[in-house]
Amino acid sequence: MWMDNDFLQGEMQKVEEQLKKALKTRNKSVQQELTKLQQSGGKRLRPVLTILGGTFGEYSSKEVTALAVAIEIIHMATLIHDDIIDDTKLRRGSETMHTALGNGIAVYTGDFLFSRAFMQIADFAETNLMKDISKGIAYICDGEIDQNEQRYSKSTTFKQYLKRIGGKTAVLFALSLASGAHKAGCNRKMSSKLGVIGKDIGMAFQIIDDILDFTSKECSIGKPAFNDVIQGVYTLPVIYALESKYKKETEQALDMITEDGGKSLREVLEKTDAIDKSRKIAMKYIEKARKKTMELPDAIGKELILNIIDQQISRKF
Amino acid sequence: MWMDNDFLQGEMQKVEEQLKKALKTRNKSVQQELTKLQQSGGKRLRPVLTILGGTFGEYSSKEVTALAVAIEIIHMATLIHDDIIDDTKLRRGSETMHTALGNGIAVYTGDFLFSRAFMQIADFAETNLMKDISKGIAYICDGEIDQNEQRYSKSTTFKQYLKRIGGKTAVLFALSLASGAHKAGCNRKMSSKLGVIGKDIGMAFQIIDDILDFTSKECSIGKPAFNDVIQGVYTLPVIYALESKYKKETEQALDMITEDGGKSLREVLEKTDAIDKSRKIAMKYIEKARKKTMELPDAIGKELILNIIDQQISRKF
Repeated sequence: MWMDNDFLQGEMQKVEEQLKKALKTRNKSVQQELTKLQQSGGKRLRPVLTILGGTFGEYSSKEVTALAVAIEIIHMATLIHDDIIDDTKLRRGSETMHTALGNGIAVYTGDFLFSRAFMQIADFAETNLMKDISKGIAYICDGEIDQNEQRYSKSTTFKQYLKRIGGKTAVLFALSLASGAHKAGCNRKMSSKLGVIGKDIGMAFQIIDDILDFTSKECSIGKPAFNDVIQGVYTLPVIYALESKYKKETEQALDMITEDGGKSLREVLEKTDAIDKSRKIAMKYIEKARKKTMELPDAIGKELILNIIDQQISRKF
Repeated sequence: MWMDNDFLQGEMQKVEEQLKKALKTRNKSVQQELTKLQQSGGKRLRPVLTILGGTFGEYSSKEVTALAVAIEIIHMATLIHDDIIDDTKLRRGSETMHTALGNGIAVYTGDFLFSRAFMQIADFAETNLMKDISKGIAYICDGEIDQNEQRYSKSTTFKQYLKRIGGKTAVLFALSLASGAHKAGCNRKMSSKLGVIGKDIGMAFQIIDDILDFTSKECSIGKPAFNDVIQGVYTLPVIYALESKYKKETEQALDMITEDGGKSLREVLEKTDAIDKSRKIAMKYIEKARKKTMELPDAIGKELILNIIDQQISRKF
């Protein structure tokens, strides 16, 4: 498995150490929450991809890990802000920041993390990379704004869904691989190739994440099942069900989600094969990412990226 | 008056034009709100100070106005986030963004603006300036986090208050003057001198702003009077009253603010001379800023900065 690779483990240890330093703040309760957020871990896929992207060029540990840290901080900032908006109470099994400290502090802590990420990037990056990353964040916000506008909308289309997850998730995956490569001196062509692979991995990742909201138990995913639907975020399985001949039934199931605990929705998703159909779309992205990765030149990162791609298929949390 | 100066008017017109471009976004309702926010104007003190800072070096219109735009965008982003936290319904007489579009979209629009500001800065700034600005935003967030933690606390001290407004307001004023100077090639010493002046102007500005919350009518300040107190943000006049022998009375007045519409609080503030005492502190900062500005070399900015400083004293909104 990719996480057992010695090189990657060594680099990720550096990332964790630098992350700890970068998350230092003088406010005690904020500090406590940030430490908790770091320790609760998560998969760290984005910094891992940044490092792997770097292996396709002249890998410089200091520069690539610093960039990986900045990208993980951006991710953390968006997590904190997302949790406020979605009012997610639990993440990775522990209380979210706005639940613990209130919305106000959570909004500012997210802002604080964005500024920290930029400080970190300004420490070593040229302005071009800066621009790419800023543009990436703007896209992420666009995706989140879309998601917010489409909330509780039963007419969200497949296309709108793809665009939305493209912004809110895939952009940062793309940025991770591409910026790692760029920092290691890869040319524009190679960096964008890796960016496209990152985007496809991100798309697959988010679709599978969305599926898990229907199929997982709270204990494994670290947040309540059906959380998205309850928050009015209708993801691919729901969109498929709404597009089927069971449209009316799906609409009713959505409206009674809190009353019946998702029983009707589970039934209609089964009838419409919506989960399987969604999984197929995720598989398409996985195949695309796989194919393009196979075409890459040899590098430590190549096998590991393939491994990450394959692992998405069997992901349970 | 400083706003009648031809040079400044010309530069500020460029700022407005660039601001309009920088605030473009594909989401229609967000676009509408951003346009409204730009058109509602405000004093634009921060970009004005950036431009004036630039006149102490070799002024380059293109570079300094682009920086001024970035700083105003950062200010707008913090305004949007502040209004969410304080649940301010009106700003400059019109509905705030989260009131119009909901908290979710307002959080992301703030984030979007931060990323836009960084894109703008990355377009022309060197990484050092980038770092200073990122650090500035981190301080602003620190100030806001403090304010949130001190909310409804009747034991907030004078020192805590100064630190808090130093972060939430004065830092960006300092950054405006200093970065403008820096961008125009002033040396570190001159830039920091201007930064200190900016900080003092910012301190005076915020104290006066806080006083106006008690003395203004809704129609002139564009938001309801006593808004701070209602939101649990206890500013200098309240802190003075709480430190006086009328402590108990002040505490009671704070607790009944919504019931009696601020009648008791107004009485206790009068008895304790709290508004006048606060005004004296503002005057101290104004004197300091004045004195240091007088020591500056001749430049278009010198007289205009003095004029801005003096204007603070008589500010009614």
